[in-house]
Amino acid sequence: MSAALGKDLLGLEHLSPAQIRLILDTAEPFKEVSERPIKKVPALRGKTIVNLFFEASTRTRISFEFAEKRLSADTVNVAATGSAVEKGETLVDTAKNLEAMRIDMVVIRHGSSGAAEFLGKRIRSNVINAGDGKHEHPTQALLDLLTLRDKRGRIEGLKVCLVGDVLHSRVARSNLWGLSKLGARVAVCGPYTLLPRGIEQLGVTVFARIEEAIEWADALNVLRLQLERMEKGFIPSLREYYRVFGVTAERLEKAPRELTILHPGPMNRGVEIDSRVADGPHSVILDQVTNGVAVRMAVLYLLAGGRPELADAAKGPAPAGIGGGGGGGTD
Amino acid sequence: MSAALGKDLLGLEHLSPAQIRLILDTAEPFKEVSERPIKKVPALRGKTIVNLFFEASTRTRISFEFAEKRLSADTVNVAATGSAVEKGETLVDTAKNLEAMRIDMVVIRHGSSGAAEFLGKRIRSNVINAGDGKHEHPTQALLDLLTLRDKRGRIEGLKVCLVGDVLHSRVARSNLWGLSKLGARVAVCGPYTLLPRGIEQLGVTVFARIEEAIEWADALNVLRLQLERMEKGFIPSLREYYRVFGVTAERLEKAPRELTILHPGPMNRGVEIDSRVADGPHSVILDQVTNGVAVRMAVLYLLAGGRPELADAAKGPAPAGIGGGGGGGTD
Amino acid sequence: MSAALGKDLLGLEHLSPAQIRLILDTAEPFKEVSERPIKKVPALRGKTIVNLFFEASTRTRISFEFAEKRLSADTVNVAATGSAVEKGETLVDTAKNLEAMRIDMVVIRHGSSGAAEFLGKRIRSNVINAGDGKHEHPTQALLDLLTLRDKRGRIEGLKVCLVGDVLHSRVARSNLWGLSKLGARVAVCGPYTLLPRGIEQLGVTVFARIEEAIEWADALNVLRLQLERMEKGFIPSLREYYRVFGVTAERLEKAPRELTILHPGPMNRGVEIDSRVADGPHSVILDQVTNGVAVRMAVLYLLAGGRPELADAAKGPAPAGIGGGGGGGTD
Repeated sequence: MSAALGKDLLGLEHLSPAQIRLILDTAEPFKEVSERPIKKVPALRGKTIVNLFFEASTRTRISFEFAEKRLSADTVNVAATGSAVEKGETLVDTAKNLEAMRIDMVVIRHGSSGAAEFLGKRIRSNVINAGDGKHEHPTQALLDLLTLRDKRGRIEGLKVCLVGDVLHSRVARSNLWGLSKLGARVAVCGPYTLLPRGIEQLGVTVFARIEEAIEWADALNVLRLQLERMEKGFIPSLREYYRVFGVTAERLEKAPRELTILHPGPMNRGVEIDSRVADGPHSVILDQVTNGVAVRMAVLYLLAGGRPELADAAKGPAPAGIGGGGGGGTD
Repeated sequence: MSAALGKDLLGLEHLSPAQIRLILDTAEPFKEVSERPIKKVPALRGKTIVNLFFEASTRTRISFEFAEKRLSADTVNVAATGSAVEKGETLVDTAKNLEAMRIDMVVIRHGSSGAAEFLGKRIRSNVINAGDGKHEHPTQALLDLLTLRDKRGRIEGLKVCLVGDVLHSRVARSNLWGLSKLGARVAVCGPYTLLPRGIEQLGVTVFARIEEAIEWADALNVLRLQLERMEKGFIPSLREYYRVFGVTAERLEKAPRELTILHPGPMNRGVEIDSRVADGPHSVILDQVTNGVAVRMAVLYLLAGGRPELADAAKGPAPAGIGGGGGGGTD
Repeated sequence: MSAALGKDLLGLEHLSPAQIRLILDTAEPFKEVSERPIKKVPALRGKTIVNLFFEASTRTRISFEFAEKRLSADTVNVAATGSAVEKGETLVDTAKNLEAMRIDMVVIRHGSSGAAEFLGKRIRSNVINAGDGKHEHPTQALLDLLTLRDKRGRIEGLKVCLVGDVLHSRVARSNLWGLSKLGARVAVCGPYTLLPRGIEQLGVTVFARIEEAIEWADALNVLRLQLERMEKGFIPSLREYYRVFGVTAERLEKAPRELTILHPGPMNRGVEIDSRVADGPHSVILDQVTNGVAVRMAVLYLLAGGRPELADAAKGPAPAGIGGGGGGGTD
């Protein structure tokens, strides 16, 4: 069944709807593991995983690290920001070295689009993309999908609008692929300067005004505004951005139907989102964080050759599947 | 029994004498764990702990990390110095995110007084204060108390003098609370500029001269001099400080009775303490470090719901309490 | 048998040929552990190890960390670059503190020659030198020896030439000791400014031209060129260095017999070594990385008191020696 996913998770662009659903379905029983008093299953015991982060990311790194540890893997963190290892040529050597150390899996975040695929093509170890440049951030989109499905009961036919800096966002790109593949209707809303050219031709609705998006949507995925966008002239000021595109409580009150609010975090409260919205009843932002650990456990489990039908057994108090699948040694 | 401590350990100010004694008594059997060939008990197996350090602290972080690992917890380190996460508003989001990932415990060090309490009020996870601004550093005071009790057989009635920069020291504050609650007689000694105003009215004796303190005390807790105090004009020079307040071998020779020397480390040898004293027969400075691991194990164990009467069983070679209490899974 | 190695591994200068062979022989069964689906043996379960790196070294640190984790030890990383702890006086206090925390082993990398020995003399914990100044880097030389022995069937009588900056290289120093002790014939080749004075008098052949070295040698160990050497005037330019001393495919074609190429990494491709050589059939560079984990497991195992005759048993599917020696607890 592991062939169902292939060797690496590089992005959602090349996954089939069935593969995406496999990951979401496998994540379900893993959610329960994090609610146990003993948050640990031996599925990846004795597997060695490197978290290779060329960009700082406390949140994603912690989420992966706890996913790995709850699966009983051995993990090593490598923070490589600013080092010579960022150069393309050296990334090959880094990759070959990790493989030579018999690392089973590499979770990589890198500032260059395509870095995860580049790595995956050169080593036998499984590679998981934790964000590569402006390309993809697949586990973020998968946790968004899982959260939406939990909250709304389905993805198919759901109207989801990505709000903000769609142009530079790998989260947006992965969401566009994932939502489309699972049959959602997708829109974007943001300053003209921060939307990709010609996106309408891909069947994506474009809203120039946030009020229109709120009227249309079942869910808004509010992207983080990179503050350097202002310096580069994409937006006139943070205050102006908030005035025009801010997702505020006042605006949400006018929503004609149930509206779910997602945000990949970390939030700029008072810039792209109002605190009353972030902490309010529409928000599933903390559910996203909780689901992030479960989705990452599912991806790690599946790539390592885990069988999804056994993952289900993890729900029981004496797990026979996840619980006993990979362990059983003397330790 | 875990209710005996409450959810968090924020400081000694709000602990009762019975609660402080509970921690010290629970630490006793844990000391023995670190002397075993296999320094590990399964008490916190499957628990996930974040060490969230907004200030650098190699020593305290290592001590906590080994305490956690010897209890079989899964740990993740987050060093957040200098990052945007230091802002109060974002600390809420960090806290909420950790809780959403189902972290069981957070050990936090932060430059702002009250940060640990702020965090503890906002999440269900247990919070342990590893030092917050100039407020408290409770595990340091607890290990000081344990070391004093070991060495001198009791705390009650013992005359303990805190020497140096009492005004800015969270170690001093926690010691003042802990010593008073357990019935010690407390004094302070240091430059007038580095002592809190009106401390005499709290029943604390004030010595202007180190010679008087040595004549009076059963134990001196020599605080680390923050070198920036000199730049800020609190003391004229390091040499002058050493001349007037340095705890030297010559001065100790004049002690009229047994005198125990503590220091929370790291030491400025030749500034607040003479190397012959630090490494001499009066010093229990390395015992403090050893006890630090045991005290932190006790705090982690009790906050996680461990039962102190079982901790005692850890002394045996086949631990039934600590040894078997939290484990027994498939791993 | 652990007395066979002594308390610390500081360098190869003071090891006997029998001790070096003991390490290499013990590494053999550990190689197989890293090829298993579950890469973990309980030999060092409950042991606590600090990786104390005063110089950055991603590769060596990862290799040690996975060696430790595959032996089931608990590890803590301390990166101390640039901190006050680098001063000699404070290193004593750091050492004493680690010992007080009952750390079993310290792996230390430090910019000063002799730092590992300094530490080892002051604490009871085992100390492993992971590189000290220009002095020694023993585990690197041991993995070089293991790789050579694997590839060529023997060390004795083998003709090995160290190429490049021998003068400043701790890898070269450790290799000179190890190769000589095991009966290899050793040569060096590099710019006159980068070779130690009077090395001929130690029985080491000196080649001024890389072509002569290639004609003579069974193996070349190509050292990394520290790029700051150019700034300091030791070599005129990188291009000139490559032109005169670069190990290129064209030059290797003229080798009169089988020639094995080693490099400790990270490589400067196109400076000291041609990419076609690094990735070509003569190269054992990735085998070195693989063997690095096994050699470090062997050193850790032996210093911790492991018995080499039991290490052999680790080959079996149900390990009775490495596999079961240190474990068998409740966890």
